[in-house]
Amino acid sequence: MLPEHTLAEFRSALGEDRVFNDATTLAVYAHDETPRRITPEAVLFPTSHEHVVALAKIAFKHRIALTPRGAGSGNVGGALPATGSVVVSFECMQRVLEFNPDDRLIVVEAGVVTDDINRITRAAGLFYPPDPGSSAYCRIGGNLAMNAAGPRAVKYGVTRDHVLGLRAVTGSGETIRTGCRTTKGVTGYDLTRLLIGSEGTLALITEATLKLLPAPESIATLRVCFASNRAALNAVGRIMQQPVVPCALEFMDHRAIDAILPTGAASDLPPGTRALLMVEADGAIQDLPRQIAALKEALAGDGLLELRSAFKREEIVQLWSARKSLSHAVKRIAPLKINEDVVVPVSLLADFVDFIDHTAQACQLAVVSFGHAGNGNLHINIMVHPDDSDEMTRAHHALDAIVQRVLKLGGTLSGEHGIGTEKRRFISQEIDPATLAIMRSIKQQFDPLGLLK
Amino acid sequence: MLPEHTLAEFRSALGEDRVFNDATTLAVYAHDETPRRITPEAVLFPTSHEHVVALAKIAFKHRIALTPRGAGSGNVGGALPATGSVVVSFECMQRVLEFNPDDRLIVVEAGVVTDDINRITRAAGLFYPPDPGSSAYCRIGGNLAMNAAGPRAVKYGVTRDHVLGLRAVTGSGETIRTGCRTTKGVTGYDLTRLLIGSEGTLALITEATLKLLPAPESIATLRVCFASNRAALNAVGRIMQQPVVPCALEFMDHRAIDAILPTGAASDLPPGTRALLMVEADGAIQDLPRQIAALKEALAGDGLLELRSAFKREEIVQLWSARKSLSHAVKRIAPLKINEDVVVPVSLLADFVDFIDHTAQACQLAVVSFGHAGNGNLHINIMVHPDDSDEMTRAHHALDAIVQRVLKLGGTLSGEHGIGTEKRRFISQEIDPATLAIMRSIKQQFDPLGLLK
Repeated sequence: MLPEHTLAEFRSALGEDRVFNDATTLAVYAHDETPRRITPEAVLFPTSHEHVVALAKIAFKHRIALTPRGAGSGNVGGALPATGSVVVSFECMQRVLEFNPDDRLIVVEAGVVTDDINRITRAAGLFYPPDPGSSAYCRIGGNLAMNAAGPRAVKYGVTRDHVLGLRAVTGSGETIRTGCRTTKGVTGYDLTRLLIGSEGTLALITEATLKLLPAPESIATLRVCFASNRAALNAVGRIMQQPVVPCALEFMDHRAIDAILPTGAASDLPPGTRALLMVEADGAIQDLPRQIAALKEALAGDGLLELRSAFKREEIVQLWSARKSLSHAVKRIAPLKINEDVVVPVSLLADFVDFIDHTAQACQLAVVSFGHAGNGNLHINIMVHPDDSDEMTRAHHALDAIVQRVLKLGGTLSGEHGIGTEKRRFISQEIDPATLAIMRSIKQQFDPLGLLK
Repeated sequence: MLPEHTLAEFRSALGEDRVFNDATTLAVYAHDETPRRITPEAVLFPTSHEHVVALAKIAFKHRIALTPRGAGSGNVGGALPATGSVVVSFECMQRVLEFNPDDRLIVVEAGVVTDDINRITRAAGLFYPPDPGSSAYCRIGGNLAMNAAGPRAVKYGVTRDHVLGLRAVTGSGETIRTGCRTTKGVTGYDLTRLLIGSEGTLALITEATLKLLPAPESIATLRVCFASNRAALNAVGRIMQQPVVPCALEFMDHRAIDAILPTGAASDLPPGTRALLMVEADGAIQDLPRQIAALKEALAGDGLLELRSAFKREEIVQLWSARKSLSHAVKRIAPLKINEDVVVPVSLLADFVDFIDHTAQACQLAVVSFGHAGNGNLHINIMVHPDDSDEMTRAHHALDAIVQRVLKLGGTLSGEHGIGTEKRRFISQEIDPATLAIMRSIKQQFDPLGLLK
């Protein structure tokens, strides 16, 4: 427990109403989207960069661990409080410090909600491309910490591709500024990208200068039903071998389709549908028909059962309903979701999904796979009952086998969720000891006492 | 001078014909594109990653400084040998280790010539976008070290945006592998981007996995003549405020036009031309007319004198002749070029070019400015006679004033050339002490004896 005088120091630096250690608040901030719970010592709600500097200096002085937190919407325990730590919530740092349409940039505090950025920039015909599934409520600071992505990454890249510079506070309370305000800049080491995806373990990001792109004028959507996973994933391969890059290329496997059957959201899929692709194109209205024609041509092939297209907003929403119903539907299968977010080279995706299928059967597990097929990024959801220890053991065996296979195929442990606490045990299987040692020594430079968890 | 037994160690590790210390070789490798010369102790020509590991371990044991070198085509002394150092030339590491069109990647050794990458990938309809002016002879390792760019950066980004992973050797001879083979991946810290742009001071990059994009089907070019710098740069602002992003947006100021007059390359410019823009669009043949129409609309405005367009290769080459003749023409003004590569926000470019104009007049200097206006990246060439000490003093005053102004406008010291030896004295004006201290401590983790120069 934190001594009262330390709490008083935090209160004096941040204000009385910015430091909480009542049971209710601690319970709310004891977890993220993972099932584990660890009660923090306190929760701090800074409202400015200067607050973050002050709290980091106090934490440094008293050697108190800090767990930074955006919306707590992460899937890997990145915002799960480390034991004995104080949570630093960025929810109250929501200011837009500058919006400069002429230079296509926006400067925001770390607590700004991702979708709010697009609400502001759209009025000037600009947009911030990364679109994690939680964009309606997640915070940009969390996106930066995890290098978040989403469907649009296949065309536009991930968070790291859209950041010009950062302001941050190290583990010893030093302010650093990284990057620049311009779209080119090579002065000094690229600390911007080093901090992005470092999961809050190097520094507390307080402000970000984001690069904006012209917003696409229009969108068209294809929903494509296939007779098998392999037929769908072969089509993914064909799409990624022709010049028109879609702005979404989403895959759902047959178990995902089975999962949504009870919700009614699959009622308009043709009989025999065992895999689904959602394919989107964006751009100028005049240019969309050309893009859609090229995508349709690439999609045509063995096992294609039905292709529907939509150009109007209502029709597009309707086509996405099967896919969008999936998250809720999956929860009905079993109370706990072990959610993997692996990536394999696109050309090996069909083989990999076969492997998952065999593993699920061999281990008698309910496994639902879907994801961002254009990046080879698959969300594998092993649905389990945490009280069934036999099932849990089989799930962990399956997980180990999946990770082994991912690495054997030249893939990576995580495409967008990060490592957090949940995947830490696998990291040394992907990264060799010399490279890991360098990473650890870099951590020490930013956070000499190892307080940023 | 290196003792004979050290040379013998290098010879034993790399082969007799891979280690040179004759006067001719040392003279050739004593400089890059900057005028300074520092004779190295020896020049090594490794042919494999294992050679680089071996030579780094020998250097570490004997505390010998190493200066890595691509083609020596850099502008800031990045490949200028540090005093007492051994040059590591990557010229003989030219293997393409893998070309995988299905996964849109190519794995190359650091000595591969940049243009050769596109020669190989074009056959499969793919391309590697970064296009530094030296792409016909520069090496990808040098591009990675400096985070090279070129005209296409305005649409496609810079080197760091097109690299999936690296293999490298640290200052103590350890092999590290960074990144992955997939287009998404967030496992561990982003050492890939940390090494890119670090100018060989953290590790010797031996191999790179590059991300490829579908090659654009066709290109169209506009050459646009304006009555003033401001008229041209206002047009740049209008282009960067509408949705069609050109794949080149190059600017030449009135002094650049004056410089090419004697070469005859300006003979087809209309009278009164005081600034020039080269604007290119690329994409599907069907879509180019729409893009060109939008760009023309944005270009129209006060001071536009003439706009010519070209869609065929020969016509495009003809339109570029004024711009392409500039590098040689500039050399006739004075024997020495002090070449700055600064960046300012696009919206402030016109004001900044005005400032350069005033500074050139006030300091009685010949200053030629051109560059990648869509990124706000200006190449400012102060043409001087190194024997004229008064002119040199004025040039250094002008340079200081320009750097001050760049930083005041929120710009950065270098967009694509890097810092090297030539801009080192300015770096603490752009980067604050805490951030610089972190950079220095990171350097120490990769290169504990400070041998990588």
